[in-house]
Amino acid sequence: MADIETTTSLRRGRPGYDQRGILEIAVAAFNESGYDATSIGMLADRLGLSKSAIYHHVSSKEELLALALDEALDGLEGVLREPAATEGPAADRLAHVLRGAVDVLTARLPYVTLLLRVRGNTDIERAALARRRTFDRAVADLVVEARNEGSLRADVDPAIVTRLLFGMINSIVEWYRPDGPETPAQLADDILTIALDGLRVAP
Amino acid sequence: MADIETTTSLRRGRPGYDQRGILEIAVAAFNESGYDATSIGMLADRLGLSKSAIYHHVSSKEELLALALDEALDGLEGVLREPAATEGPAADRLAHVLRGAVDVLTARLPYVTLLLRVRGNTDIERAALARRRTFDRAVADLVVEARNEGSLRADVDPAIVTRLLFGMINSIVEWYRPDGPETPAQLADDILTIALDGLRVAP
Repeated sequence: MADIETTTSLRRGRPGYDQRGILEIAVAAFNESGYDATSIGMLADRLGLSKSAIYHHVSSKEELLALALDEALDGLEGVLREPAATEGPAADRLAHVLRGAVDVLTARLPYVTLLLRVRGNTDIERAALARRRTFDRAVADLVVEARNEGSLRADVDPAIVTRLLFGMINSIVEWYRPDGPETPAQLADDILTIALDGLRVAP
Repeated sequence: MADIETTTSLRRGRPGYDQRGILEIAVAAFNESGYDATSIGMLADRLGLSKSAIYHHVSSKEELLALALDEALDGLEGVLREPAATEGPAADRLAHVLRGAVDVLTARLPYVTLLLRVRGNTDIERAALARRRTFDRAVADLVVEARNEGSLRADVDPAIVTRLLFGMINSIVEWYRPDGPETPAQLADDILTIALDGLRVAP
C-alpha cells in the first residue's frame, strides 16, 4: 500500500488510491457482500474517498468487475501460452498447466474467487464465463491428448477427470489462506500427486 | 409423485403433498433462489397450496431447512457407521467412506447442494456446519490412519489431502446430472482412481 500511495501522490498530487488499489478493495467487497449488493457509494465509504474520486479511476462498477475478472482470466490464459504448456509430451504439459493454475489461484486468490462465483447475469459475466470455458476446454484437450499418447489411464473418462481436477483445484479458494503453513509450490505438488499420479500409466 | 399423492390422498382424504413432497419443492426453491429469498408464500404458490395447507405438514421455513440439512447429514453420517467404514485397514475404510460420500451426493443431490451452501447465519445452519465439520474430521482421521499404517504416501500433508478430496467430491454438486451418462458407481470409481491411486504406497 505504501508504494501505491507514493505513486498516486506523485501522479495526482494527493494521497489516495490508484486504479489498482481501488480494484483490490472493490474485489474484497464483491466477495464479501456480493457484486449486486455492492454500490460505488459503499466502496467510497470503505476507501474513505468521494464517489467522484473513484470515478477519476474507473468509469463504473461494471468496469471494476471487468478489470477483476480480466485479472483472473489473463493469469490462467497466460499459463496456456507458456512454452512448457505448448511443447513436449501432453502429460508434462498437463502437469505444467495444473501447476500454473494453482499458482494463479493462490497469487490472485480474490480475483479467481470472484470469477468462480460468476453466474452469467450480465454481458461482462457471460464474456468471462466464455473465456473460462475456453480455458477449461484447453485443459480437457490436454487430458485427452495425454490419454491418447498412453500416459494417462484409458479407463477413466477424460471429461470426468477434467471436472474432478478443476473441482480439486478450484476448492483452493474455499480454504487456502496466504498466511497459512502451505506454500503455493507445496500445494501444487500435493495436487499433482493426488491428481496425476493415480492416473499415470506406469512407464 | 404418483405414490406420494396416493399416500396423501389415503391419509388425508385429499390430493396434495405430504411433508416429503413439500420438502423436495422447498429444497429446489432454496437452491434456485436462496433460502433467505424464499418465503412460505412463494412455496405455497409453487405447490398450488394455501400457506395453511403447508403448515399442516411443517411448522416453519426453518423446519424445512432443518429437515433438508438432516437429509444430507444423516446420509453422510450413516456411511461412517457402516461395517466397511469401521473394520479393516484404514485405506480400505477410507475408500469405502469416499465411495459412500459420492453415493450420498448423487442420491441426495439437492440436499447436499443446500448443505454445501450453508454459511452459518442461524442456529440451524451452525448446527449443520458443526455436524459437517465432524464428518470431515472423521475422514481426515482416516487419512492420517491410512498414512500411519503405511498405505498412503507420507510426503503429502493429510490435512491438505482431506481438503482436496472434499474439493473433488463436493464439486460433483456443480456439474453432476442424474440423467447424464455417468452412473454414480462409475463416478465413484473415477474419484477413487484419481484420489487414492496417486496416494497409495505400492504394495
